[in-house]
Amino acid sequence: MDFVKRVTTDRTPPGDRIAVFDNDGTLWPEQPNCIQFIFAFDRLKSLAHVNPDLRKAEPFRTVLEGGLDRLATLDEAGIIEIIKATQSGMSTEQFSGIVANWLDTTKDPRFRRVYTDLVYQPMLELLYYLGANEFKIFIVSGNGADFIRVFAKQTYRIPPERVVGSTTVAEYRVGKDGPVLMKMPEVEVLSDGPGKPEAIDRFIGHRPIFAFGNSDGDKEMLEWTAAGAGVHFLGLLHHTDAEREWAYDRDSKVGCLDTALELARAKDWTIVDMAADWNIVFPFQYETAGT
Amino acid sequence: MDFVKRVTTDRTPPGDRIAVFDNDGTLWPEQPNCIQFIFAFDRLKSLAHVNPDLRKAEPFRTVLEGGLDRLATLDEAGIIEIIKATQSGMSTEQFSGIVANWLDTTKDPRFRRVYTDLVYQPMLELLYYLGANEFKIFIVSGNGADFIRVFAKQTYRIPPERVVGSTTVAEYRVGKDGPVLMKMPEVEVLSDGPGKPEAIDRFIGHRPIFAFGNSDGDKEMLEWTAAGAGVHFLGLLHHTDAEREWAYDRDSKVGCLDTALELARAKDWTIVDMAADWNIVFPFQYETAGT
Repeated sequence: MDFVKRVTTDRTPPGDRIAVFDNDGTLWPEQPNCIQFIFAFDRLKSLAHVNPDLRKAEPFRTVLEGGLDRLATLDEAGIIEIIKATQSGMSTEQFSGIVANWLDTTKDPRFRRVYTDLVYQPMLELLYYLGANEFKIFIVSGNGADFIRVFAKQTYRIPPERVVGSTTVAEYRVGKDGPVLMKMPEVEVLSDGPGKPEAIDRFIGHRPIFAFGNSDGDKEMLEWTAAGAGVHFLGLLHHTDAEREWAYDRDSKVGCLDTALELARAKDWTIVDMAADWNIVFPFQYETAGT
Repeated sequence: MDFVKRVTTDRTPPGDRIAVFDNDGTLWPEQPNCIQFIFAFDRLKSLAHVNPDLRKAEPFRTVLEGGLDRLATLDEAGIIEIIKATQSGMSTEQFSGIVANWLDTTKDPRFRRVYTDLVYQPMLELLYYLGANEFKIFIVSGNGADFIRVFAKQTYRIPPERVVGSTTVAEYRVGKDGPVLMKMPEVEVLSDGPGKPEAIDRFIGHRPIFAFGNSDGDKEMLEWTAAGAGVHFLGLLHHTDAEREWAYDRDSKVGCLDTALELARAKDWTIVDMAADWNIVFPFQYETAGT
């Protein structure tokens, strides 16, 4: 709130109030697996049901036999093969429909809630607070922009054009029913790390004054924001709450937080300790909180 | 105005009021050459002055000897070589400074005005009118996003994140003075034609309800907009005014307008006849119009 007060009283023009957020692990959980990986795995199973030949080819065979945890251990090339197989060969509108249906009907096994119920309540409040103070809020994620765009507007109040991420290449085709954008088996990867400030330059075109992340993959995005000339705010969410959510940092395969935590401590950036700082983690906990 | 009235009284949510504009030939002139090509040619001459070896290599030798008109006849590969040589090897901030300085100091030889004085007054009024009715206005250009972003905010009131176009790849580097984004000799081309709806999908993530262009390169963008479910507006600027600006269409090497004009007539899209429909072309003509 001190930062927002400085921005609004120092007369930083609303046009320059750019805020960037990582998505997975920052706005909703990424443990025990990234939610988009769970979607991809479910789709892979459906596709293998229709087309059993898929079970014979790698990396699909390994993943179908080894399960979701095996998918998460694939290298980038393997993950890209999974994305190509599960998220291309249909129109952009068909894909959005498949994602929307999956999000409506699939529940997290631990919390027994649909995934859009698992956004972090304090982060929602932060998004709305910045929005009310005329910040332009962007998501910058290494995961799929076209996946996140399906729920970001309703869940975060972030419209599609403010979601930057990886994507399959869309190809414009005109058929007998008019034009469609077909998702092709070609992935444009937004890499974590240096890829985040690079994507900010390409898609947003100016430097943020606010950045929030939760892992080493967000370090360069925060560092780039911190190097700006005016006031800025850098935030890191530290997952310390195994009881209500998850506890992980240096040794985690998903969302490793190590060098970014050191840097945040050295530079006195804001580190949120989930267990100590958050009264409520998920919105549905209000229902049972008794306050 | 009928269209805007329908959009606002039919309660199309502001978030869905996406308007896309081509830049060159739609918001400012592209004759006798694209303004960014003039910039690239001026930079090539400056670089050749510092580094005479450039005169020995192709396509630079041909262009330096043949002049600006020769540059415009290069194929895409040749143009990309020129862009790599003139618009990379510096930080994104250095590049913006070079463009800003060039725009401040370079005058169009025919009109003897800086190029940002040559935006079309009726199109400015259209941009502001849509903006006042809560449209989100984007430029979608095959030319350089990082070139257009330098002047779009002040000239059109369009902020950097609403400018979609080609760009050199930026690479994140941390040096002794902190992080910089270096422009690399690698170009990500936003192609005219089908490339425009493809870029709209990638950068904006939903379908526009309003599109305005002036050449065959805008045809697919208009066609994609027209194929949407709700109300939509399609506009084409026809350059018919050799006296006040330029007159060109089917046979022009820059901004050829042929099949898009046929389509617009067949579909009853709005065709602006510059000579017949515009009382004023450039803002400075108010100074001498006597009204």
